This record gives sequence, C-alpha cells and structure tokens, in this order.
Amino acid sequence: MEAKLGEFDLIWRFFNAGSESMAQTQKNQVLLGIGDDCALLQPHATQSLAVTSDMLVEGRHFFAGANAEWLGHKALAVNLSDLAAMGAKPVGFTLALALPNANADWLAQFSQGLFRMAQQWQCPLIGGDTTQGPLTICITALGHVPGGDAIKRSGAKVGDDIWVSGTLGDARLALGALRSEWPLDHSSLETILHRMHEPEPRIALGMQLRGIASSALDVSDGLLGDLRHILKASQVNAEVLIDQLPTSRTLAAQTEQLRRQCAANGGDDYELCFTAPTSKRIALESLSTSLLPLTRIGSITSASNGAEPTLILRDASGNLLNAAETMRLMQSFDHFKSN
Amino acid sequence: MEAKLGEFDLIWRFFNAGSESMAQTQKNQVLLGIGDDCALLQPHATQSLAVTSDMLVEGRHFFAGANAEWLGHKALAVNLSDLAAMGAKPVGFTLALALPNANADWLAQFSQGLFRMAQQWQCPLIGGDTTQGPLTICITALGHVPGGDAIKRSGAKVGDDIWVSGTLGDARLALGALRSEWPLDHSSLETILHRMHEPEPRIALGMQLRGIASSALDVSDGLLGDLRHILKASQVNAEVLIDQLPTSRTLAAQTEQLRRQCAANGGDDYELCFTAPTSKRIALESLSTSLLPLTRIGSITSASNGAEPTLILRDASGNLLNAAETMRLMQSFDHFKSN
Repeated sequence: MEAKLGEFDLIWRFFNAGSESMAQTQKNQVLLGIGDDCALLQPHATQSLAVTSDMLVEGRHFFAGANAEWLGHKALAVNLSDLAAMGAKPVGFTLALALPNANADWLAQFSQGLFRMAQQWQCPLIGGDTTQGPLTICITALGHVPGGDAIKRSGAKVGDDIWVSGTLGDARLALGALRSEWPLDHSSLETILHRMHEPEPRIALGMQLRGIASSALDVSDGLLGDLRHILKASQVNAEVLIDQLPTSRTLAAQTEQLRRQCAANGGDDYELCFTAPTSKRIALESLSTSLLPLTRIGSITSASNGAEPTLILRDASGNLLNAAETMRLMQSFDHFKSN
Repeated sequence: MEAKLGEFDLIWRFFNAGSESMAQTQKNQVLLGIGDDCALLQPHATQSLAVTSDMLVEGRHFFAGANAEWLGHKALAVNLSDLAAMGAKPVGFTLALALPNANADWLAQFSQGLFRMAQQWQCPLIGGDTTQGPLTICITALGHVPGGDAIKRSGAKVGDDIWVSGTLGDARLALGALRSEWPLDHSSLETILHRMHEPEPRIALGMQLRGIASSALDVSDGLLGDLRHILKASQVNAEVLIDQLPTSRTLAAQTEQLRRQCAANGGDDYELCFTAPTSKRIALESLSTSLLPLTRIGSITSASNGAEPTLILRDASGNLLNAAETMRLMQSFDHFKSN
C-alpha cells in the first residue's frame, strides 16, 4: 500500500518531521498531534481558548510564483497576529493546503518558513489536510489566554488613548513599488520588503497588553478601516492625528500623500492597534522602551449611541482634514474590490 | 464606511445570521463568536479538545456548479465525521471560504445546508475568513471528549473484531454512474445519490463507542485503505471478509466485481470503521439494533512487530482472494493520483 499512496503521502512527511519534535515541547497541552482523525489538546480550566482561521489564495494574497519560504512564514504569522490581538499565547495550529502538484523543493522551502515561525512561538502543527487544487493555504491557530483577560474589540471607552505598535505602511509601499504604482529606489525597497513578506506577529506585545489595553485588533486591512471595527464593536467615536501615524524612515521620506495613504490604509501591517485608559500611559511608555515602539495616535472622543461611529482625522497642526482627503484615506482594502 | 465594505461584508451577514442564534445555545462553551480577531471558547477541565481541518476544492472534491446546499452540508459533515471517529461531541467550527464572486443565491443555499447540519449537531459557526479565489471551502471543527476517552487509531489489539457502521460504497457507485464509468438506472441512482451529496456524520455512534471501541476512524478514502491506517498505527495485521462488507440493496444488486470495488475502496462513505474486543459483541449488537446497523467484517489477527502490516482478504466461502483481485481492491483513493 505504502508505495501507492504516492505524492499525497509524501507531503505529510515534510510536515510530520517538523511537527514531531515541537509537539514534544508542548506535550502538556498537545495530547495527540498529526496522524489521527483529530488532534487532541488538553485545555487548562483557568484559560480560555482563542481560535482563528485565515485563508491565503495565490493571485489574491500573494503573487503566483511567490517565494515558498516567505509564504510558509506569512501564512502562520497572519494567524498568530490574530492570537496576539486577543492577548493569547499560541498552543498549536492546523494546516489545510491545496497544491497544483507536489513539488519537493517548494514543500521543503514552505515548511522551512512555516516551522521557523512555529518554533519561534512554540506553536506546533497538530493536524490538517492536503489536496490537489489551486494553491491555497488555510491555517487555524489556537491559543490560550487566562480566563477573562482576552482583549476584545468591544472594550474601548470614552477618553481612552488609541495606540499602535511599530510602524505602518511599509508593506503597502513595497507592494505598490513592485506593481509600479509609484517609483521606489532598489535600496529603499530592499529595506522594507521584509515587512510585506515576513510580517512579525506581535505575540509578546499582545500578552503584555492583558490588563492594560481596553480593546485591540491587528492591522491587516489598513489602520483606519480596522480601527472602525473597534469603534463599531465598542459603539464609540474617535479622532486620529494622521501625521502621528508611525512610519519607517523609508516611508517618511515619501510624499505626504503617499506616506499618509500607505500608513492610514495600507494593509498587511500586522501591527496591533489598541485603546487604553490615559492612566496606562506610563506603563505603555515603559513597554515602548523595553519591547517595541508604541505610538499614541488619537483618542476615543464620545459614545456613538448606536449610530454609525464617526472617525475624525486631523493633520499635524490639529486641523481637520478636508472631506475628500478623509474619504480617500478611509478606503479600506476589500478582498472583493478590484485593486 | 459601511457601504464601502461591499460584497466582502455582505458575505458575513449570511453567516452571522445563522451563527448568532446557535452560539446562544452553546454559550456555556462559546464565550465569543464571530466578529473579533479570534473566537473564544471556555474549555472544560475534564474534557480533551478534538480539532480537525478539511479542505474541499471545486473540481476535486465536488463538480463545478455543484448544488450549494449540498456543499454546505457536506463541508461541515466531513469534519464532524472526523470528530465522530474520535468519539467527540461537536463544540463549534470555523469556516474559511474562497469564492470567485459573491453570489447571493449561492450564499443563501450554501449557508442553508451548512446551518442545517450545524443545528442538527448543535455546532455553531464561531469564526472564519472569506476571500476571492477559486471556490475552496476549509472548515476546522472542534469537539469535546471526556479526558482519556478519545478513540484513537492506535488501540487495536490482536483478537479484536473489526466493525463498520451503515453501508459502504453507494457514494462511489453514484459518482461512477454520474461519470458514466458504469450504467445505473435513474431510480437506483436517485435512491443512493444522497450518500454522495449529503453524508451523515456518525456523531451519536462515535459518542456511544467510547469505552467500547479499541480504535476507530471514519471511512473517507475507501474502507481498505483507511483500515490500513488503523493497522499501521496499532502495529497489527488483519483479515477482512470482503463479501461481508455491508452494502445497500442498490449496490448488492450490481455485479460482484462492482459491488466489491465500491464497498472496499469507494471513498466518501463517512461510516465509522472500528475495532473492539470480542467481549463487546453483545453491547455492539444492541447498539446495532437501537442506533444504526453495525457489521462485523473481520478481525485483528496478529502483531506486525514493526513490519508493514498485512491485510488478508477472504471471500464468502472463507477462501483467500487471489493476488490480482486483492491488489485491485486495495487501491486506495489518492488525492494526487489521476482518477
């Protein structure tokens, strides 16, 4: 029989090898990994379980022929980023993979990127599925967060500050340069390309934000569009200082319009955007020094009382942006818009 | 903003509606459903969590243009079938869906099939992802099983009986008829078509088999190929009485060759194949009367002692099948073989 299982069987050998050693490191939580009908986890009674699924499709989320190692990294990173946004610690993940064919080189590279990320966050592969089809990667990640400590989108309160981690817009700046939407010199592109291909999930930050942040999410579709989700869930209005959005030196060196557009609406940043009471500023400034730069970009101004939340944008001088500029910056990336 | 979210947003409205009422019914376990970065579950300290992911791809697992209601049913059913095979009770599922476009009729039908199955087993949709791409459905299902009671593939012991639930081969018989691999009259096809399109996960049986079955799996790729997984995991050899495989009247009325081929190697059956000590025969015969027909089809004959397991096939008279027939019947469905 074995020989007849052919390529299908071959694929899991790549993933088995990488997952077995890691499952050992997590064996308190992973009772059974790859190779049965289901994986089995041993939950902790004092912890909630966070669950998230993301699907990446060739031609939509990445170019055809994209570097397989980056893909493996990114496919897991975007899911871990969702765990980070809840303040959860990774426990394990499943992988469902459709492939046009079983190319050993591709699989070796993909699994290298995937398992490096998995190893970094001690998040073993616990199960999944492979099939033939257009290249599609679906990962479901599971994490633990102490009961009641999960950071939801719905907790933002009037008077809270709005914060964002790291810098925004580099992934969009790089994408636009690769698509010839705007010029960018090679050396600049090289400096920021990793932000597009190998995003770093802010797991350590998310865990530190438990008990500090009142709401959080990860910035995947563009800051302003994503912030809207917090405003809707929390039923509040907000004000953002558009020129306070943290950017890399490379993005800061671009035109004002391009800088604002990429930072406000870029997508693929995988930074955390969160709210916190003003009483937490000292704690957050300390985290900003010790862990990862954190920037205050605005505040929650009032309750929306069930109406559609309003989000007001101000420039560096504190002046309101005009309506056309505001509208342009609020165009969130939509997977069903042509772009 | 709302209007601009467009079709992407529209899609989740279909799924939100179906999931919210159900999440209520499970609110002891589901702390947070759709609409945040992650879903949150409250695990029970005494239960293990079973996790399984399956991906269905158009043109591979279903025909282009397939009935969307059946698809919704089947996509969840195949995952619940994996939970059943572990003896787990469904808790919830995530859905990642790639769609070429957001067709409201298709979405209405798909979600109807999906939520009817979800309702039947009290398994709410807790999160997921939608994107544009070739039609691909990836579901991750989560279930609970009392600590230590999960039925693994690795527990089969020498002397155990091998059992299978329901009947085998109808899905393959129907598929072959639709593909004109063999003739089948319309009335027969109509009788068995639901086995291909709307498989019933054996959740109730799986839960009853806790403490009875020594090993189990669900038959998705064909009985003999799947039974091999039990033999490998348990390091045992087995004997199967090929003409004892339970079949519908429709399949029983076909030629011996077709009947054997579909039953032994059909795929898409979603019955449970399991082993149990002979001391459990009375309990299983009672279950067979009260819940679902169960048939004894063979036995675990010896330990394989680390070698590749052997699986011997006998006919109705107890004679060994010849090598060519054995080989033919053992050709398991492989997602990377052309077929």
